[in-house]
Amino acid sequence: MKLVCLDLEGVLIPEIWLGLAERTGIEELKVTTRDNPDYDNLMCHRLAVLKKHNLGMKALNQVVAKMSPLEGAVELIERLRPRFQIVILSDTFYELAMPLMAGLGWPTLLCHRLTFSDDAVTGYVLRQVDPKFHAVDAFKKINLPVIAAGDSYNDISMLQHADVGILFRPPKALVENYPELTVATNHEELGDKIECFGSSL
Amino acid sequence: MKLVCLDLEGVLIPEIWLGLAERTGIEELKVTTRDNPDYDNLMCHRLAVLKKHNLGMKALNQVVAKMSPLEGAVELIERLRPRFQIVILSDTFYELAMPLMAGLGWPTLLCHRLTFSDDAVTGYVLRQVDPKFHAVDAFKKINLPVIAAGDSYNDISMLQHADVGILFRPPKALVENYPELTVATNHEELGDKIECFGSSL
Repeated sequence: MKLVCLDLEGVLIPEIWLGLAERTGIEELKVTTRDNPDYDNLMCHRLAVLKKHNLGMKALNQVVAKMSPLEGAVELIERLRPRFQIVILSDTFYELAMPLMAGLGWPTLLCHRLTFSDDAVTGYVLRQVDPKFHAVDAFKKINLPVIAAGDSYNDISMLQHADVGILFRPPKALVENYPELTVATNHEELGDKIECFGSSL
Repeated sequence: MKLVCLDLEGVLIPEIWLGLAERTGIEELKVTTRDNPDYDNLMCHRLAVLKKHNLGMKALNQVVAKMSPLEGAVELIERLRPRFQIVILSDTFYELAMPLMAGLGWPTLLCHRLTFSDDAVTGYVLRQVDPKFHAVDAFKKINLPVIAAGDSYNDISMLQHADVGILFRPPKALVENYPELTVATNHEELGDKIECFGSSL
């Protein structure tokens, strides 16, 4: 049995912070892990923007409440479940992502936590540094072959450490910088590649 | 976010080998991990009995096809999913358990594989020695607090290594030998204990 580790935002659900950018019109929130390889730098920028515009959990929850899984995401999970075990490895936060998990059929999700003071987002607690890499490393050490897929800079260490790493609809810079990683451009192709690689592991 | 590691047979679904014993009337198949602490010894016994009675995957599949989750198991999983991440740690085999996973809502399952020659079960491949312990160990090392629950000897190392270990409807000998482990006698009580311990981790 092989384990499939999937990124969440951009692969199964829309980018939550882009949703907030669109809803509020704040251009500064349009930077994501697809553009910025420094996650802490990105999160500090986001929290500063929230504070500057007096936005908190209520605004974030309103964005999430209107979101649905990406087209093809539910079908991908349903297709993979009888043949693979699935764990979602994400750099998002439980407080934002959990309302979307029911729509995906509650796959196991490993991500981070936000900290609050009333409505204000005061910070975040990472489960650990380089969390996707370490999760894949832990799974490999208990003899689980790992196929991983993601779309962003924060997925690269996971994709490189997995037995098979697949870029899903990546930005051009990622394809150019990591030509050794195979690319899937839609959910059907991602499912095909996972099944194909899975049969050879 | 805390991880809940649940045993499968006896906690979420009936004991598959007991089902085969009842279906075939073969008394020798009535020994389970609840009675025998030596898993390899138990499995070698089971495979020898299958061979002696000329029973193979067809007979096992017929038993599994008539099984459903235990009463209260689906409700337990549905209750826990919004607040915990769930991974099933089992010493059963994917070939037997996967048909039952849809009924439980496809929780992530780590277990073992059987080997075949046509219909005959020729052996088994463990993912690793002491697999439940090592899975909990791996999860703890990536900073996931673990609450574990199981009913048998093969759960003890997992229950002792988890942040919280709960015996579910255990045989009397286990309660006597491991008085430090708390006991839940039904699924509602198990859910209550997981939620209570989870809030203090």
